[in-house]
Amino acid sequence: MITALAGGVGAAKLLLGLSRVMNPKNLTAIINTGDDIQLHGLHISPDLDIATYTLAGIVDEEKGWGIRGDTFSCLDGLRKLTGSEWFNLGDCDLATHIFRTNCLRSGATLTEVTAEITRALGVNTRILPMTDDRFETRIVTARGTMHFEEYMVKNGAKDEVLGVNLFGADKATPAPGVVEAIEEAELVVVCPSNPVVSIGTILAVKGVRAALKHTKAQKVAVSPILAGAPVRGPADKLLRGLGREVSAFGVAELYADFLDTFVIDVVDAVEEERIERLGVKVKVTNTLMKTLEDKTRLAKVVLEC
Amino acid sequence: MITALAGGVGAAKLLLGLSRVMNPKNLTAIINTGDDIQLHGLHISPDLDIATYTLAGIVDEEKGWGIRGDTFSCLDGLRKLTGSEWFNLGDCDLATHIFRTNCLRSGATLTEVTAEITRALGVNTRILPMTDDRFETRIVTARGTMHFEEYMVKNGAKDEVLGVNLFGADKATPAPGVVEAIEEAELVVVCPSNPVVSIGTILAVKGVRAALKHTKAQKVAVSPILAGAPVRGPADKLLRGLGREVSAFGVAELYADFLDTFVIDVVDAVEEERIERLGVKVKVTNTLMKTLEDKTRLAKVVLEC
Repeated sequence: MITALAGGVGAAKLLLGLSRVMNPKNLTAIINTGDDIQLHGLHISPDLDIATYTLAGIVDEEKGWGIRGDTFSCLDGLRKLTGSEWFNLGDCDLATHIFRTNCLRSGATLTEVTAEITRALGVNTRILPMTDDRFETRIVTARGTMHFEEYMVKNGAKDEVLGVNLFGADKATPAPGVVEAIEEAELVVVCPSNPVVSIGTILAVKGVRAALKHTKAQKVAVSPILAGAPVRGPADKLLRGLGREVSAFGVAELYADFLDTFVIDVVDAVEEERIERLGVKVKVTNTLMKTLEDKTRLAKVVLEC
Repeated sequence: MITALAGGVGAAKLLLGLSRVMNPKNLTAIINTGDDIQLHGLHISPDLDIATYTLAGIVDEEKGWGIRGDTFSCLDGLRKLTGSEWFNLGDCDLATHIFRTNCLRSGATLTEVTAEITRALGVNTRILPMTDDRFETRIVTARGTMHFEEYMVKNGAKDEVLGVNLFGADKATPAPGVVEAIEEAELVVVCPSNPVVSIGTILAVKGVRAALKHTKAQKVAVSPILAGAPVRGPADKLLRGLGREVSAFGVAELYADFLDTFVIDVVDAVEEERIERLGVKVKVTNTLMKTLEDKTRLAKVVLEC
């Protein structure tokens, strides 16, 4: 049994790699839901969908999210009706949001509807939201506090990050199976996701960090930072906003209290000693995942830690 | 000021004709909402949309409903997720349903959201739902009582109609502007729609029939029955189910208490005398509307009644 903590695109690549080098049924992915947002009355779960579509083999690989070959007719219609529309919602993708929203309104939990969606799309890996409760990552900027997706997608992550507000974190409890998946795993993989708004949110759910400290599983993280910059996304701005160093070391600091091994890129080999001084073993390898081969190779490295 | 009572496809054709031979801003269409249905948590208003899309010039003219050139990717996705999907929802069409549902959930009335949709789509004619309240046409069959769309679309109108149950009719009040539009009109046009489940529902909303009797407007209806059969739809089955004659005369009987003039097709000229004996004047003309010219010609005949 292997459990992964995962955000969006970077995580999904490693999840795909893992699912190819092990029995995917023995893999559980605990997914960040801090990016979840209500748009047009629909419940959008960006990271859950990226993981699901990737493992279902239908993701738009060029973008890393959405469904390959999807069209945007409905979005065009919504734009006409609302005058503006900043979040991309493909027609086929919308089926997921409509189905999810309807199930949630009918009383299902996010865990339950996620299980239904993954089953319908033929995903064998267990995908769990980190929580079934409301949890919303908000970014504090000089222009005000805004939903993460607003900061990221609407405003193009242009604003300086003054702080991060995890709305709901004080009340959110782990979704059913989350703590068990960590406690009963042989290996917990922290995917190369944003350490603040993807992994940081999962770690902020009550009991998750304690479970990571308590479990007998090996805990291995893959650095999302290469040569002082994130592979993708605004992790640099968020780390800086929290007064953290934008480096593999800066990420290692955030995980040091529970982490056994940190996998960093060869370009960051120079950081090995500093990270080991945090009490974390270091594995140096190529961490960029462009091809499927990159993904399975990195997955194997992680499994061997 | 001219006010029309309207159902779906047949009505929309005459509305289009009227909007071309008069100032469309002086036309108000009161639309049946008894077919409205919740599907996937979305509020679908089939007749409101047919009228809106037709007057906006974007209707799929071949089908008579939906948007021309629309795609069905989202529906395919919903089919995968739910295992079945019997109601056609195009991708572009879905924007309307998503927008409407979100506005209704946010507290807007159906009248308000309809006004927003028609404005956004450039429709100059005022389109009013018959009521903002829940009103659901249910068909009683030997297999049980079902929503009209279930009877019609899901089951292909194959079941014998044992009765019609207008759920909510006892409580539904006319939408704002409905009674006024009837009372202040010079002419009220009853479109060639199903007399039971399109016009019958509008007439069943409290105060509408009284307003029709009370208004000084000329009241002119166009027969939806030609040569003993409906131009389209299951009006024959519904009339028969209520023990009514399937003929222009059978429809005239249902409207006789308020109607001044009944426009019937030349093929039904033989019914003229029987209808006049109900105290209703008869105008005989070609009522089939295939081309835009047919529609404007019939609209002119109606306006001259």
